[in-house]
Amino acid sequence: MTGEGIIRGETGAQRLLGYTLDVGQGDGRARCHLRVGPEHTNRHGMLHGGIVATILDNAMGATGSLTRDPEGRHPFLTISLNTQYLAPAREGEALVAVGRITGGGRKLLFIEGELRAEDDRLVATATGVFKPVSQPAKEGAA
Amino acid sequence: MTGEGIIRGETGAQRLLGYTLDVGQGDGRARCHLRVGPEHTNRHGMLHGGIVATILDNAMGATGSLTRDPEGRHPFLTISLNTQYLAPAREGEALVAVGRITGGGRKLLFIEGELRAEDDRLVATATGVFKPVSQPAKEGAA
Amino acid sequence: MTGEGIIRGETGAQRLLGYTLDVGQGDGRARCHLRVGPEHTNRHGMLHGGIVATILDNAMGATGSLTRDPEGRHPFLTISLNTQYLAPAREGEALVAVGRITGGGRKLLFIEGELRAEDDRLVATATGVFKPVSQPAKEGAA
Amino acid sequence: MTGEGIIRGETGAQRLLGYTLDVGQGDGRARCHLRVGPEHTNRHGMLHGGIVATILDNAMGATGSLTRDPEGRHPFLTISLNTQYLAPAREGEALVAVGRITGGGRKLLFIEGELRAEDDRLVATATGVFKPVSQPAKEGAA
Repeated sequence: MTGEGIIRGETGAQRLLGYTLDVGQGDGRARCHLRVGPEHTNRHGMLHGGIVATILDNAMGATGSLTRDPEGRHPFLTISLNTQYLAPAREGEALVAVGRITGGGRKLLFIEGELRAEDDRLVATATGVFKPVSQPAKEGAA
Repeated sequence: MTGEGIIRGETGAQRLLGYTLDVGQGDGRARCHLRVGPEHTNRHGMLHGGIVATILDNAMGATGSLTRDPEGRHPFLTISLNTQYLAPAREGEALVAVGRITGGGRKLLFIEGELRAEDDRLVATATGVFKPVSQPAKEGAA
Repeated sequence: MTGEGIIRGETGAQRLLGYTLDVGQGDGRARCHLRVGPEHTNRHGMLHGGIVATILDNAMGATGSLTRDPEGRHPFLTISLNTQYLAPAREGEALVAVGRITGGGRKLLFIEGELRAEDDRLVATATGVFKPVSQPAKEGAA
Repeated sequence: MTGEGIIRGETGAQRLLGYTLDVGQGDGRARCHLRVGPEHTNRHGMLHGGIVATILDNAMGATGSLTRDPEGRHPFLTISLNTQYLAPAREGEALVAVGRITGGGRKLLFIEGELRAEDDRLVATATGVFKPVSQPAKEGAA
């Protein structure tokens, strides 16, 4: 994990799937970047819907974390996640998922997410309910 | 991919995540089996919510496929997927996701899913809307 | 409001829509009963999807209440509600919505709901996240 | 039903609940207006979550209709509706629900909705999948 708010390979899932988490844009919105490879595809040769949900979930949860600390490390749990699949994404495309807080407070946050391709095509949207983990994030365990 | 309705490593995502798809139980319900490894974990060392959504989505979609052909290969698209995260799953646990048709017809199916641990603990539930791909599945492309 | 666990006309919405809430079946599951009248219909002459959501929400929330007190009066807030519309319901049909706890704990409950017609046809399903109101229910204010 | 794109009391549910549908703003987005009365309240004296879902559903479905005809009358069915409850609304408040198309095509539309109070407070958001009824809307039956 490196650079100005760019987090790479922090978690098992992130290393496995190969996406990058960016919490350093200064607008309170975390982003996940993924280039679709053959290892991300489903039976149709398109990006697997589960991986769509994964990077949306991660961008949304980290957007929640940014409400608690500027480095986006405070752990949040996903309570529920609703994903709408608007358009397929193909191998080779570079995608970015971004979160946005819509409401909530100290105990729960409502966060929405958008997944777009380079041509600005909206691939998926999501809404979710997230909960901050009550104990403070520990060094290296966040 | 091998055996009596057991499908391994068929798609990029399945190979990457390392789960098994079972469409051979004869009850019209597809199952995905996953043993949680360190590569599946989030910041809390728990199974990543996106991977929860991935295996639920796959079990649910393949349950849709079983309504069209006995080998569960007819491709289905996920239109929307709602996942509820009831309990965390830990590294080392063996999980099974299973789908069940609740309604729909020729053009759309409503499918629900459950993800359980070996101790029968309910880890997550999901509901979704799925659409059969209209062209028949081609050999090797399903 | 009358009888053994049967609650009629307790709230403004309940009086307006004309459904009955039954929290007295002893199985921890609240039910809402509605006979579809012309005042419940949409542009297609079918039961309005919003009224489907209303009686599901009420049966699910009251099922949450039954986990706190045997009379099902502890107030719960709906955090999110996902409704799937499986089949239309027509004027004249008698419907029952019923809730079921699937998970959660002290601070949040995951509750699912089913809406069925007299012929046992599944009209809609729902999942939701509910939160108990922290202050104890006051007499007459629940 | 009257005026420039203002539809009042068209359906049973609309007459019962007393909201107004506005399909005449020329931006392709339908709106439902409701002033919260005592007949719309739940056990907490707040706007019932089901009525929140009802006016969101109606604004979203009519936004779908506006993609088919300029008077917003082509009938649409709700396939699934996910509502997030961000903040309560109180008796006396004037609310407006508005829809927005996010994706889809000839057979399905993805539509999101927002419900706001006069102080611009976001009361609820929703996402949904909607399907046009295949037969053309008939006069008086839409």
